[in-house]
Amino acid sequence: MTDFTATRAAFDLPDGIVYLDGNSLGPLPRAARERVAREVEVSWGRMLIRGWNEAGWMDLPEVVGKKIGRLVGAPTGSVVAGDSTSVNLFKALTAALDLSGERKVVLSDSGNFPTDLYVAQQALAALGRGHVLKIVAPEEVDGAIDETVAVLMLTQVDYRSGRLHDMAALTAKAHAAGVMTVWDLAHSAGALPVDLSGTGADFAIGCGYKYLNGGPGAPAFIYVRPEHAERVSPALAGWMGHAAPFAFDLGYVPADGVNRMRVGTPPILSMASLDAALDVWDGVSMADLRARSIELSQTFIAEVEARCPQLTLASPRDPALRGSQVSFAFAEGYAAMQAAIAHGVVGDFRAPDIMRFGFTPLYVGLDDVVRAAEVLERVMGERLWDRPEFKQRAKVT
Amino acid sequence: MTDFTATRAAFDLPDGIVYLDGNSLGPLPRAARERVAREVEVSWGRMLIRGWNEAGWMDLPEVVGKKIGRLVGAPTGSVVAGDSTSVNLFKALTAALDLSGERKVVLSDSGNFPTDLYVAQQALAALGRGHVLKIVAPEEVDGAIDETVAVLMLTQVDYRSGRLHDMAALTAKAHAAGVMTVWDLAHSAGALPVDLSGTGADFAIGCGYKYLNGGPGAPAFIYVRPEHAERVSPALAGWMGHAAPFAFDLGYVPADGVNRMRVGTPPILSMASLDAALDVWDGVSMADLRARSIELSQTFIAEVEARCPQLTLASPRDPALRGSQVSFAFAEGYAAMQAAIAHGVVGDFRAPDIMRFGFTPLYVGLDDVVRAAEVLERVMGERLWDRPEFKQRAKVT
Repeated sequence: MTDFTATRAAFDLPDGIVYLDGNSLGPLPRAARERVAREVEVSWGRMLIRGWNEAGWMDLPEVVGKKIGRLVGAPTGSVVAGDSTSVNLFKALTAALDLSGERKVVLSDSGNFPTDLYVAQQALAALGRGHVLKIVAPEEVDGAIDETVAVLMLTQVDYRSGRLHDMAALTAKAHAAGVMTVWDLAHSAGALPVDLSGTGADFAIGCGYKYLNGGPGAPAFIYVRPEHAERVSPALAGWMGHAAPFAFDLGYVPADGVNRMRVGTPPILSMASLDAALDVWDGVSMADLRARSIELSQTFIAEVEARCPQLTLASPRDPALRGSQVSFAFAEGYAAMQAAIAHGVVGDFRAPDIMRFGFTPLYVGLDDVVRAAEVLERVMGERLWDRPEFKQRAKVT
Repeated sequence: MTDFTATRAAFDLPDGIVYLDGNSLGPLPRAARERVAREVEVSWGRMLIRGWNEAGWMDLPEVVGKKIGRLVGAPTGSVVAGDSTSVNLFKALTAALDLSGERKVVLSDSGNFPTDLYVAQQALAALGRGHVLKIVAPEEVDGAIDETVAVLMLTQVDYRSGRLHDMAALTAKAHAAGVMTVWDLAHSAGALPVDLSGTGADFAIGCGYKYLNGGPGAPAFIYVRPEHAERVSPALAGWMGHAAPFAFDLGYVPADGVNRMRVGTPPILSMASLDAALDVWDGVSMADLRARSIELSQTFIAEVEARCPQLTLASPRDPALRGSQVSFAFAEGYAAMQAAIAHGVVGDFRAPDIMRFGFTPLYVGLDDVVRAAEVLERVMGERLWDRPEFKQRAKVT
């Protein structure tokens, strides 16, 4: 049985805050603070260039990849960490296209995180081979998978509604039609059980700073199905993905397996923070996490609906169809969320009217959920969202 | 007059070490240590998601870009920081090709850092438009610039020998032939005066962790000549380079100017470290830095040649033709460098036989240079390089 009291104690959370925004930026694990301080003081400050060997910097992308792999059902050696989520999506999409022959359609949906669509639009234009990006509604994806499609590129959990795609079913249908799959696990990794091996997903990428708590802008990760890895000729190549980076040969020879998806020198301080943050997951069962996540989110929905008739559930009601977040729609959602934040309940807002709350059992408990509903009841009952100080928009919303 | 005593005091260097490897990894600025601790403890730990606004994370790529711009002769708004050097080279090369019409040749040289050639090889293959990478000897570059060339892609300072390309002359010749230029400033930025505006360079990229002292794997930077920036349609696009990242529109619209070269969420801890490290450059004149660099390197050459007849200078003797590093060739160079390191003089080794020493006036003085020569004299005179403990190769050399 997972000890969520112990995981909660592993985080340094500000007093008096209910933090329901870990789906956007995970909070600070105590071990990450200590690790970053040590990397700066000892590994960089004292070892200097020897840090690459003696502090293990060279192997960090694999070490971190292995830890993430356990959380997403990927075997050792199939995941590496580094670069941003967008850059990893570019790597995965171009690799998938390279393996998919002459078909010209990349299929995605309008619930995808927009940056994924930007990556695809610009990558397809740059490749200049006549690929088109076909964007359908999330519920139309299944019906749009056919033998014209080269690559199915989806984010498993919708960033606004939390709606969950059925990765196993869609991947199976894609494979039956000869379609490669690229899954974005930004809101899945660390949020719910994922079985990359079992579903047969071809490529996957994901984020280090949301449910994995690696710190702001922590490196992302990429998974390549082992049977594909040796066939991938990366569009984005660099010395860290070379078979012999320190031979300094003029010709590119890809490293074995997924290591060829490494490119340049990774940001070590951010990577070390993520590495330490992942140790919080030792002993956490993903099944326990999922059960707790559902308990938290179902309780939240029930409490909010009982207290706040002004708010409309914007997430699937069935938890089996939902990731680990819950959204409510409200026309003045931006101001309402600012008011909630001012009263100690931190969620976030996504245009046009979505109030978004993430449920992260590592450090959020039932008491937090009830308190969040109480604060929302006050924000609604007292119309705090109508106060001018809560309506002023910040640069980053 | 630049106060190099003050800049030296800004670094936390281990006692008893002469550090001549700042061209590979700059040492720890005291301000970077404090800044990283604050970002972890306060911005991440206390502000949590508000850090994007309140700690200025959103603007860091521009803020850091502006500081770097001053060191490389680039106007405000023409440089952004983020991603690795290799990823930025991919962005610059694909953008340059996109602006260069139907020509098919990318010209580079065999003295380029190999990762640059890997980036180009794989990018050209992915683009699939019949571009070829033509690699000539460094001294043949000038003669190879003609009207068949689309893009001239060079690293200004040779990573092994320190040989310096004449950026102004080669860029002028390239432009006369209608050739776009992409300059890698990995061993130039912070090493010597660079005038991107004055030379008319079209694109440039560089490294944050060498002479800029941003920490291991610190983010890199990219420069786009302002007159090109609005015409660039990035191959590698993401939400941070969108005109309105938080509108979450499904269609990509590039941000103004060089900001479109931003892609995903940058690694904030590593970026903040670089930001703080760059403040050491306040009040540093690049002309003073260059004069001091030449004094250090000329002294080093004279001292080593007087003491170590076994070592052969592998860098240009004329400092005007050299960056801020000096190399000596020696068949047992790997073991000799290990022996020097064991005696407190840290340089590095590059295959097959190059002992490489970087001169970084911010924290290296004439006393260090003389001591380094004394240690090398002992390594050579006592044949310390012949001891088995110094011959064993580490993973990262």
